[in-house]
Amino acid sequence: MSSITCQISMSLDGFVAGPNQSVENPLGEGGERLHEWVISTASWREQHGLKGGDRTPDSEVVDEVVRDVGAYIMGRKMFGGGEGPWDETWTGWWGENPPFHAPVFVLTHHPRKVLQMQGGTTFTFVTDGIESALEQARAAAGDRNVAIAGGASAVQQYLAAGLLDELYLHIVPVILGSGERLLEGVGHPTLEPVKVVASPAVTHVKYHVVH
Amino acid sequence: MSSITCQISMSLDGFVAGPNQSVENPLGEGGERLHEWVISTASWREQHGLKGGDRTPDSEVVDEVVRDVGAYIMGRKMFGGGEGPWDETWTGWWGENPPFHAPVFVLTHHPRKVLQMQGGTTFTFVTDGIESALEQARAAAGDRNVAIAGGASAVQQYLAAGLLDELYLHIVPVILGSGERLLEGVGHPTLEPVKVVASPAVTHVKYHVVH
Repeated sequence: MSSITCQISMSLDGFVAGPNQSVENPLGEGGERLHEWVISTASWREQHGLKGGDRTPDSEVVDEVVRDVGAYIMGRKMFGGGEGPWDETWTGWWGENPPFHAPVFVLTHHPRKVLQMQGGTTFTFVTDGIESALEQARAAAGDRNVAIAGGASAVQQYLAAGLLDELYLHIVPVILGSGERLLEGVGHPTLEPVKVVASPAVTHVKYHVVH
Repeated sequence: MSSITCQISMSLDGFVAGPNQSVENPLGEGGERLHEWVISTASWREQHGLKGGDRTPDSEVVDEVVRDVGAYIMGRKMFGGGEGPWDETWTGWWGENPPFHAPVFVLTHHPRKVLQMQGGTTFTFVTDGIESALEQARAAAGDRNVAIAGGASAVQQYLAAGLLDELYLHIVPVILGSGERLLEGVGHPTLEPVKVVASPAVTHVKYHVVH
């Protein structure tokens, strides 16, 4: 059976975005430092249609985390476009050919028609809660996994509801001091580290959530 | 030259003690879960005059972190005995033969005479600040390292002052939800992961602090 997974970069002090997030700076102040490790990998560059980058253990992790994903779920803030009813001209941060290449289910309070993008990405807007989004994503993914793409609030909701099977944290050696925390309001899940990949830039730890 | 080091167990959500710390429960609610990994090791049991325990990578880490330590510095709360002027009958949590076997410098606002314990541990009470404590600890340690033993406040002060050279975190896969955070109010030090030891119980990551 397929798993519900999440992989996300977190600062050593627990933040997945810096302070003062805005439409201009959705990662918050300093938040881009959480993603420097990924942007330098050959795998990430390939996924985004770019050449170059480094073939490192980090790059292998980037390959690994997309390999078995059949569908994604993300929060409204991660998809972008502000709050409230949709501005229909907003089609996400990622341009005409987003890097997901799979069905993406966006959690929102505001209905909107499915968006068909290039390269196999569709954005489906789900207004009736996280369990409905999961059911639709599971159906779309078939035997493959459903990945919670972020942001913090979406991950927190699935973890708190006991629906997450695997949390793959990329622990980045920066201290942001403030911003958006990942592991807040999630209760006390039992986690087991099952894989660790170390590099000079980041420590990857994959946890199984024990049900 | 000797280094200023710190090794400490931290929950995945960044806490080194649980909520509602008290004299009866100095680790706070759930805080004992941060130390289960260490108590099960053969090395920790040997250091405390006990038999048994497991020879695991975790046990080797426990050996490693005491090997080159010539002196310790700890906060008043870690030493215990409540707040305010000293109750002279209080000699720490550790009995007549504490596990340090080295000079220990206790940061406090209240003067007290040196305590000579069994097994080579002395407690010296330092009332004129963290730099004075460090100077005295360095002199006592000679070529060996000075370890900041905890708690959170002592570690934060040395890290924020740019005096810490090495932070060895034992990242325990528990989520405490609240309590005492480690990496708060320490500014934005640059850290480099230089060693990772993985086990089913805990992920050990040693960081160098770049000066």
